[in-house]
Order: sequence, then C-alpha cells, then structure tokens
Amino acid sequence: MHGELMAAEIEEQPRVLARIIAEGRPHIAAVGRAIGKRGPRFVLFVARGTSDHAALYAKYLVETRLGLPAGLVSPSTMTVYDARPAMRDALFIAVSQSGASPDLLEPLARARAGGAITVAVTNAPASPLAAAADYHIDALAGPERAVAATKTYTAELLALFLLIESIGGRDGREAEELPHQAAGILARAGEVARLAVRYRFAEQLVATSRGYNYATAREAALKLMETSYLVAHAFSGADLLHGPMAMIDRGFPVIAIAPMGAGGAALVPVIERLRQLGADLLVVGDPALTARGDLGLPLPELGPEVLSPILAIIPLQQLAWRLARERGGDPDRPRGLNKVTETW
Amino acid sequence: MHGELMAAEIEEQPRVLARIIAEGRPHIAAVGRAIGKRGPRFVLFVARGTSDHAALYAKYLVETRLGLPAGLVSPSTMTVYDARPAMRDALFIAVSQSGASPDLLEPLARARAGGAITVAVTNAPASPLAAAADYHIDALAGPERAVAATKTYTAELLALFLLIESIGGRDGREAEELPHQAAGILARAGEVARLAVRYRFAEQLVATSRGYNYATAREAALKLMETSYLVAHAFSGADLLHGPMAMIDRGFPVIAIAPMGAGGAALVPVIERLRQLGADLLVVGDPALTARGDLGLPLPELGPEVLSPILAIIPLQQLAWRLARERGGDPDRPRGLNKVTETW
Repeated sequence: MHGELMAAEIEEQPRVLARIIAEGRPHIAAVGRAIGKRGPRFVLFVARGTSDHAALYAKYLVETRLGLPAGLVSPSTMTVYDARPAMRDALFIAVSQSGASPDLLEPLARARAGGAITVAVTNAPASPLAAAADYHIDALAGPERAVAATKTYTAELLALFLLIESIGGRDGREAEELPHQAAGILARAGEVARLAVRYRFAEQLVATSRGYNYATAREAALKLMETSYLVAHAFSGADLLHGPMAMIDRGFPVIAIAPMGAGGAALVPVIERLRQLGADLLVVGDPALTARGDLGLPLPELGPEVLSPILAIIPLQQLAWRLARERGGDPDRPRGLNKVTETW
Repeated sequence: MHGELMAAEIEEQPRVLARIIAEGRPHIAAVGRAIGKRGPRFVLFVARGTSDHAALYAKYLVETRLGLPAGLVSPSTMTVYDARPAMRDALFIAVSQSGASPDLLEPLARARAGGAITVAVTNAPASPLAAAADYHIDALAGPERAVAATKTYTAELLALFLLIESIGGRDGREAEELPHQAAGILARAGEVARLAVRYRFAEQLVATSRGYNYATAREAALKLMETSYLVAHAFSGADLLHGPMAMIDRGFPVIAIAPMGAGGAALVPVIERLRQLGADLLVVGDPALTARGDLGLPLPELGPEVLSPILAIIPLQQLAWRLARERGGDPDRPRGLNKVTETW
C-alpha cells in the first residue's frame, strides 16, 4: 500500500514518546545537569529541514524557560564563507535525524574547536554527528523508513524539551502525559480524513501560528510540500500581517494552529483578519477558537501550551498523508527526494 | 499612474546609497567604534517583514566579518510569553523602517534592561524605537510612501554593512562604488520588463539563493507576494533540497540568485537539480551561471559578493513592480496592507 511506512510511523508516536520518557530521560537529565553546571551564556542551534523546525521550537524554549538568548546558525557562513565564530560560553546543539549531513558536521566541529559545549540530538547514535559532539542524545525513535519524517520530529521535540528543562534544573514531568494524549489524538484520524477531502484540489496553502507552535506551522507546511506537492507556506501570525497577507484573497486556504494559552490568544487578531479577507480557514487547537474558522479541529487533548507542539503536529501529519493518498501520490516516496539529504 | 510611488522609490536608490556614504557614514562609524570598544560577545537582531531580511543579511555579516555568533530574536517569546533573557555582553540591533511596531519596542527595552548594548536602525529618527535604543542609526532614505518597501531595504542593508564593518575596525570603503553600480542596474529596466512578461499568469514561484543573498531571495519573494499576489516562497538552496524540492515539477517557476563568489558557486548543485526536474529557471547574477537557466539576467555590475545583496534585489523589485502592473494591480497600494504594521 502506498504510504504504509509513513502511516505506521505516525501511529508509532505514542510508543516513541513513552520510550524517551522511560528509557531516555535519565541520560538526557544527566547531560542537562552537566551543561547547567557549566553555565552557558547563549545557545545556538544548527539543523536542516524537519529538524530545523525542532530546533526552532527549542530556541523558543531556551528564551522562555532558560532566559538565555538563542539563535539558529546559518551553516553556509561556515561551509561557504569559512567563518570561525568565537564560541566560548556557547551551547551549540545540532539536530539531525540521520546525523549524516556534512553541512551540520562542519559547523559543529568548528563550534567545538571554538570553545562551545556541543550536543548532537540525532536518531542515529553511530552517526558522524553523534561522534563529533561532546554529548549525544538519542531520539530513540527507531528506524524511520518513510522519506517524510514524522516520529523523529516529535521525538526530537521531546528530547529537546527534556534537555532544556534539565539544564534549567527541572525534571520535565509535565511530559509524562504525552503518550496518552498522543494516542487520543491519533484516534481521531476519521475527523482528519473528512477535513482532507476539502483540500483535494488545493494548489497552495498557508499555515500560521504564533509562539511555540510556529514550529508546528512550519513543519505542517513542509509535510504538505513533501507528500502532497502543495505549495504550502508557513508564516508566524505577526509576519503574515507584514506583507504576505496581500496574497490572501477570498477562498485562499489557511490553517491556523491555535493552542490553548498565550500563543493561541495572540493569534486571535490574525484569525479575525483572515476572516475579514474571506480566507478558507481551518483552526486547529483550542476548542474556544476552532469555532472561529470555516472548519475547526478542536484538540482538547493538548495539554500545557509549552508541550503542545509535540501533539498539534500529529493531525497535520495525518492530513498530509491522507491528502497525498487522495491525490494518488505515495507519501513514503515523494518524488525527487532521498531520506538523507546531503548538503554543503 | 498606478505604482508611480514605488517606481520613483526604486529609482531613488542610487541617491539614497550615496547619501548614506556621504552623510551617514561618519555617525555610523562613530557608533561602530564605540560598540567595538565594548567588545560584545554575541549579536541579536529583531525585525519584521522587509527589515527582517535586512537583519538576516546582517546576521551573516556578523558571523563572517566579526567572527561572532548571531541570532534573530523571536519577539513573541517576550511579548507573548514574557521572557526576559540575560543580555550581558550582547549587542541587540532592532531594524525597522517606521520604528513604530510595538513588538520590536518591547524586546529592545527588555534587552537594554537586561544589559545589552542596543541599536535601532530605522528610517524614522523621531520614532519610539530610535528613542529607546542606546544608539540610533538613520537609514536616510527619505519618506517612503509606497506600501512595498524598496529604498528603505537597500538603505538598511548598507547602514548595517557600514555599522558591522566599523565594529570590526574597517572603513567599509568597498561600498563607495554602490551608487554607480546601482544606477547601472536600474538602467537595465527594459530587460527586466521583457522577463516579467513570462510570469503574467504564474500563480506560484520559488526564489532561492545561498549565503548573503538568501536575504535577496526572501525579499524578492515578499515583494512578489505584496505587489503581485503571487504565492512566492523563498528557500536557501540547502533547505530547498530538504523536502520542498518535491513540489517542484516540470515548468515550476524558480528564480535563483547566484552572485559571483562562493555563494553563487554553492548554488550550482541546486541549479543542476532544478534543471533535472525541468523547473522553469531564471538565474540572476554571475554571467558565468546565468546561461544555465532557461532565462538569465547577467549582472556584471555586482561587485564583491558581500555587498551584492544591496544590488541584486534591484531588478527583482523592478520585476515585482512590472508584474503587478501587468496584472492590473497597484503596487503602491497592495490590497489588505497598511504602511505601518503594528503587531504584538
């Protein structure tokens, strides 16, 4: 069956999350404590593709949970322009499913040479990236065979959450409900399938959110591009108001990810503006907000907002999978892609 | 005439660049020297929309020219989640045409309270942002009346280049050729007009580059969204290979910005992949690379790569303007937008 690998890997997520909590947490906590003692002053991430969205989530966590400045490194400054930034007091975290892309390895090696504390978060403990870092954290997602990453994404999110919490001296116990919550969301695949019908002939789409779930909007757009070949564009709600809103006209499909909490509340003005413009709006998340869309997918299963990106992506993975199948594609083998992308 | 404001502001760019070099440089150099003496350890930028693309260029400059880590701040961590990052030893630069958006003011105020050296780069010396920062740098572009920013973008790029060079103890004299080079590029509007015809009925487009001109790809896509309502998507060449390439099929319009230098060379594998896929490819930049596209816009006027973003955007501004007019729109007054976007 087309897409069976991706479908199985989406379904596997509650077990992966449970495995990280049960088996991965002690090591992650030890790494986090060791880093916390060294007192990094700022945190840099390097990643590509889906893992870059996990890094984006983690960047928000560093700013809000650790009170430290954070940035996403542009690998090309090192690989193309040979930059060698001074890295004393920096924590440098590379995130990569395969741990194999040369354009992450080189920046990590330079960061380490420049004095940074280096961490690799990968799903490949035997990878060059894992070997090159001071610390390796295994995403414990098991082999991922579909080209479109799903379970490695949520695994990276959770591993990064636990790491950052432990750097801050917390135990991350809020995460313990995630496997159960994820299973609850997966059980609602029928609702997602009914929503997917609407996008059968859509050629383009905008995904938007604010705060922690901006990463969810980015990752949802990437899944739709990879599997359904939709021209899907993600914007933070604030950036959408700066210019891109001009391309939104009546009937333009928009998916807004609005969790319970401050991020969802901050998205309300964007939702209102999209309604005024007559966009075709699906709101996913807070049951108090989903009724504001033409369509809604209320997700009462989402827990505290800080963890909601680990759950909110799941129905959007299902949507991408379903839509690819409806369009006659094979979500396991998107045209033009390989599982490991080597870039320089 | 529809679009006369934007057309005049595009044409004004050589004069604005000359004004910054003649009148702005002494103050910028003094600010840069003062900051250089304080020895910041890392640099953070905050910006939205077009100014965010100027900040992206500057982030690359900080990494390559100063050898310091840099990051783009997510305003929502402070405005939505109330984060108060520790900012000792940080240089915090806010970039904003209007200097009026509340979601830049609050992060800048918090950065200053947290111990950062703060700089505002705006086109509005009397703005709240200019008043709130330790140092203000005026983009000296004169009033910008078209909603789509053009001359303020290139002015911000040049002001940031000069600032970063002076922090690094250099005088930025390479920039002195820019007014002349920009005038040379503007004179080629006829070629751009002939290229624009091709996109009359395009609904979507991808812009791509690597390195310093990734900012150019981002800004070109935004101009096309704002003025022509094209669903235009920008990717760094490396990110494009990670997933989004799946949506590129035969005839999909792609614009690649490939300057002379390492950034253009690093884009060659992306150009080759796009050709294999049968994308409709316009290559802008290095005359040695433009012949690899279905269409090419050779720009021998581009000087050293580090300054090329200030020039390479100009024909793409012209393209957006021309296309908006061909489609019957008014590039001065895009639907759904105001000149000052207030976001929180």
